Amino acid sequence: MKFGLIGAGRIGRIHAQNLCRFLTDVHLKWVTDVFEASARDCAEELSIPEWGTDYTKMLNDPEIQAVVVCSSTDTHTQIIRAAADAGKHVFCEKPIDVDLSQIDQALQSVQQAQTILQIGFNRRFDVNFDRIHKAVASGEIGTPHQIHIISRDPGPPPIEYIRKSGGIFLDMMIHDFDMARFLTGHEIIEVYAVGSVQVDPEIGKAGDFDTATVLLKFDNGVTGVIENCRKAVYGYDQRVEVFGSKGCISADNRVPDQVTVRGSRNIHTTLPLHFFIERYQESYIEEMRRFAEAIRLQLPSPVSGEESRIPVVTAMAAQRSAMENRPVKLNEIA
Amino acid sequence: MKFGLIGAGRIGRIHAQNLCRFLTDVHLKWVTDVFEASARDCAEELSIPEWGTDYTKMLNDPEIQAVVVCSSTDTHTQIIRAAADAGKHVFCEKPIDVDLSQIDQALQSVQQAQTILQIGFNRRFDVNFDRIHKAVASGEIGTPHQIHIISRDPGPPPIEYIRKSGGIFLDMMIHDFDMARFLTGHEIIEVYAVGSVQVDPEIGKAGDFDTATVLLKFDNGVTGVIENCRKAVYGYDQRVEVFGSKGCISADNRVPDQVTVRGSRNIHTTLPLHFFIERYQESYIEEMRRFAEAIRLQLPSPVSGEESRIPVVTAMAAQRSAMENRPVKLNEIA
Amino acid sequence: MKFGLIGAGRIGRIHAQNLCRFLTDVHLKWVTDVFEASARDCAEELSIPEWGTDYTKMLNDPEIQAVVVCSSTDTHTQIIRAAADAGKHVFCEKPIDVDLSQIDQALQSVQQAQTILQIGFNRRFDVNFDRIHKAVASGEIGTPHQIHIISRDPGPPPIEYIRKSGGIFLDMMIHDFDMARFLTGHEIIEVYAVGSVQVDPEIGKAGDFDTATVLLKFDNGVTGVIENCRKAVYGYDQRVEVFGSKGCISADNRVPDQVTVRGSRNIHTTLPLHFFIERYQESYIEEMRRFAEAIRLQLPSPVSGEESRIPVVTAMAAQRSAMENRPVKLNEIA
Amino acid sequence: MKFGLIGAGRIGRIHAQNLCRFLTDVHLKWVTDVFEASARDCAEELSIPEWGTDYTKMLNDPEIQAVVVCSSTDTHTQIIRAAADAGKHVFCEKPIDVDLSQIDQALQSVQQAQTILQIGFNRRFDVNFDRIHKAVASGEIGTPHQIHIISRDPGPPPIEYIRKSGGIFLDMMIHDFDMARFLTGHEIIEVYAVGSVQVDPEIGKAGDFDTATVLLKFDNGVTGVIENCRKAVYGYDQRVEVFGSKGCISADNRVPDQVTVRGSRNIHTTLPLHFFIERYQESYIEEMRRFAEAIRLQLPSPVSGEESRIPVVTAMAAQRSAMENRPVKLNEIA
Repeated sequence: MKFGLIGAGRIGRIHAQNLCRFLTDVHLKWVTDVFEASARDCAEELSIPEWGTDYTKMLNDPEIQAVVVCSSTDTHTQIIRAAADAGKHVFCEKPIDVDLSQIDQALQSVQQAQTILQIGFNRRFDVNFDRIHKAVASGEIGTPHQIHIISRDPGPPPIEYIRKSGGIFLDMMIHDFDMARFLTGHEIIEVYAVGSVQVDPEIGKAGDFDTATVLLKFDNGVTGVIENCRKAVYGYDQRVEVFGSKGCISADNRVPDQVTVRGSRNIHTTLPLHFFIERYQESYIEEMRRFAEAIRLQLPSPVSGEESRIPVVTAMAAQRSAMENRPVKLNEIA
Repeated sequence: MKFGLIGAGRIGRIHAQNLCRFLTDVHLKWVTDVFEASARDCAEELSIPEWGTDYTKMLNDPEIQAVVVCSSTDTHTQIIRAAADAGKHVFCEKPIDVDLSQIDQALQSVQQAQTILQIGFNRRFDVNFDRIHKAVASGEIGTPHQIHIISRDPGPPPIEYIRKSGGIFLDMMIHDFDMARFLTGHEIIEVYAVGSVQVDPEIGKAGDFDTATVLLKFDNGVTGVIENCRKAVYGYDQRVEVFGSKGCISADNRVPDQVTVRGSRNIHTTLPLHFFIERYQESYIEEMRRFAEAIRLQLPSPVSGEESRIPVVTAMAAQRSAMENRPVKLNEIA
Repeated sequence: MKFGLIGAGRIGRIHAQNLCRFLTDVHLKWVTDVFEASARDCAEELSIPEWGTDYTKMLNDPEIQAVVVCSSTDTHTQIIRAAADAGKHVFCEKPIDVDLSQIDQALQSVQQAQTILQIGFNRRFDVNFDRIHKAVASGEIGTPHQIHIISRDPGPPPIEYIRKSGGIFLDMMIHDFDMARFLTGHEIIEVYAVGSVQVDPEIGKAGDFDTATVLLKFDNGVTGVIENCRKAVYGYDQRVEVFGSKGCISADNRVPDQVTVRGSRNIHTTLPLHFFIERYQESYIEEMRRFAEAIRLQLPSPVSGEESRIPVVTAMAAQRSAMENRPVKLNEIA
Repeated sequence: MKFGLIGAGRIGRIHAQNLCRFLTDVHLKWVTDVFEASARDCAEELSIPEWGTDYTKMLNDPEIQAVVVCSSTDTHTQIIRAAADAGKHVFCEKPIDVDLSQIDQALQSVQQAQTILQIGFNRRFDVNFDRIHKAVASGEIGTPHQIHIISRDPGPPPIEYIRKSGGIFLDMMIHDFDMARFLTGHEIIEVYAVGSVQVDPEIGKAGDFDTATVLLKFDNGVTGVIENCRKAVYGYDQRVEVFGSKGCISADNRVPDQVTVRGSRNIHTTLPLHFFIERYQESYIEEMRRFAEAIRLQLPSPVSGEESRIPVVTAMAAQRSAMENRPVKLNEIA
């Protein structure tokens, strides 16, 4: 199979490397980026034969079966539509878009083309969360009653990024909204969100929160809680706990080593893997493997466009809830 | 110092034993219970000289400096008033009452008598929670941003108990409302509560929830979450986590042993201490020590009546929030 | 039952308090100590009716059923013999003696008197080690193959104590030799010991080691390792691991709290309970309970004199092995 | 840099894949194996241009700078000599040989050729053991006093393998002998070894042990213990602990996930990574990176031939000790 990649920034490079190193049945033939130098550097480093700034050439290459979209969010839906029209399968980074009508048009194109669209909710492919998903689905902890998700970054992004990010719910908590559905196997019907500015007043001036807590109600009576913060001094904090009638399953952070030091003041261990690149390394490989497999075996998309629309709606409901200080039902949004 | 004890039921017996065994400067002279046999058995087991069914005799004994009130909740305020009028210090089990006007009258009597009233929020004296309280107060984790409290029982009480309990917020979560204030050092100003029936439909028929999640807003912008459930198959689940600008401090459950078994299927450890009697054993001794110390050294009450009124108000706000599905400010209640 | 206690030093006081507080069917009637003030203070604190410097008076009191011997090691066997001759049951602190012929004479007296003699190997009654003992005995980890015991003190005793102690193998590792038999259910037949001076050269000058490692061979082919050191900066280190055909069971140190702090440099927890008083608190109560129970129900001694002779022999073999740098069989010693 | 690889079996394939995937500055040009099919399959899978059964052709290729030797142990020294004579650097799997005179001849050839010889003690490059090595070297735990190494396999190899293996000390414990030196930074001067047959009587019939415990004495008075067993039902058990004057540092097993389940019977976590392929995956990459780096920057070998001879001598001393039941000094051997 021959793949192309659009957007050779940080996450694009990771996907490019993973495709070249770990997916033996995939050949990465094309890379494009709006910055010519980025595309060229990436092509040279990984011996990718074709590169350029214009992704339409790539879409016109009949050898290309699938494209991996890592460009900026505002280009996602137009690329998805163009790719679908060209009959290419698409892997697209999250979020698919922050405008529901744009999303819906893109999904329609994919549906018409009967191509596979997979959205980059990579955490689903993390061994810890995959283990919990399977435990819940198989009844290992009985009927789920309560879910609790903690997601904190080691530090906030630059304030310019914050300004364009769409806000903490759409930019950061969107992953957790997807996790909440994925892990419980149920749909969120209502959210109550509280945001505050604890980390950096500049984030508040930019109209955003840097700390947020959301209470979720699911269609089966389960309740959930998500805690987000843009800064945890101990590093990337990615924990989950699902409590059910037969037990409680939880995932702690992944750590670089298993070393413990007993010293004269305390007993200490090493801080967690620092950020998403290290923490979710294997999940990025696995999501790409599953994308290639879906194409090869004509399977349904592991993370469909329809599914990836739901966290966007949830984030919008949370945003409204935080602004209006009231619980907001998802069907208020769309 | 000579003490009397009113109510020789389960918790009363524990306090009586602790007073006899561990408080070398206190002599437990009196025990009363509405059931004569309970008072007599307790007196015999612990060599308590005086016993009976009428606590007023005890209050008339000029040797008695303080009484420990472990009778049913509906008798608390009248005993507190009578004891205050008799010039006795009072240790009273939580909740002080479920009626705010009754509470206020009792507090007024105490204030007039200038006696010490300590309410049995024993968890404050638990080594884990005391350690976290001090860490937060001393700035060890910086400014607190988010707090998360988990409190689950190994199994629900009998349905008759549930019916008279005042509901999950007043009966069970009241401890956690107190913890939330105690650990953060800040006041809750608003709650949003969600309750559901996951454990036993009979509890629902009795008009109560058996599972509840509450989101708290504090006066300084901190947010908190409390998760309660009447049944956890793995036993008493009492965990807390406070996240702040310089770190995150958490308390795991207390366990009976430190044994790990590596077997052919998994690595396993022993379930937590089963219920509050085992889990909070030392805290019951410590709260009594602190009560005796406050009397001896004329210190302020370690857990004043005024403070113990606040969790009652919080529970009422949570109850209203769950019923009306909206955030409720505490100053709506009282 | 009425008990007497001989030797009101540190460990004697602990036993006296435990008898008074926790053994409701035992009355501690007598306490003696070679230092009059010690006996008197102890008697006053715990309301013990009779006290003095001469334990023979206590042995002549027909009400006394049993004596608890906490005097210095060199007085143990003579007291055991006198007590046996007076028909009293004896609980005696470890080691019973460091001279085998003295031990044998004392055991003979006990045998003739048909009284109960229990030696204070309190660690057997620790919840962790009791749990491991039962797991091994019940086959939970299959056939044991290897055992590993770590035992380190927070700091060395005064050099005067070291000089009279009998050496690290008799004074410190004797507990671990007993543990090794107790946990595996098998007899040690040979030891190879290595000692060194790492902590304090004064200990070396006193003719002792402060650090020692011993390899044990058991009668069934199991091998064991014991590591001792007089000083661990992180406190009292008391760990055990038994590896068998169906798994591996281990006990970690007991800790004062279950609090974890995630900070900017590491994740840390609290140091273990500092020394034997805190660490083995419950085991001291439990061994006394079991002693009283054995008397009341006419059961065999929970830790017989014969059993307590074996660790003395093992320690002597280890001492010889370390001196001669060769494996030494226990039947070389006695 | 162009590399060749000799021996395309299990470990050979791992090195070949790692060279192709992760060492961007190395080109794997040649692969040979005595089984033609193995060489061809490997070459095809990884697009290696040259393959065959005769490694001398590879050594004659002037483009080849270094060879990676993964053939059977009995071929190691002859290949090392031939490669050195051809001016090629060599990475060779452990053990270099089980015959000291063969080793010495090979080392002489390497010395004359001034090439780099690195032996595959991959565990040195494991993050856990590297962390401990650095902690000890930097004084983080003060002066080391005691070291303890546990190394157990999930199951024994086939009995035919056992027969040719050279015995448990040379085949299995050799890694731990290297670790002991590496972690303490000191030389072993004497060993006392005990072996037994606990897992499979067939291993005993083959003249080997399946379980062994060894006590080590180091040149600076440190003592060490190594415990080996051919079968642990819970999987690959690779733990280390170094105790020193300022603390104790230990490495637990590496695990596939960080998931904990609180169930109705116990609290459980997942078994360790099953065997060396999974457990030491990153260390195989890292040792190859360090080999390539040493060539590129003309650094000394990260694990020299001279160093790799020492664990062979130690294993021989342990073997003799176990046979003769006495401590054996390393300078008895060579």
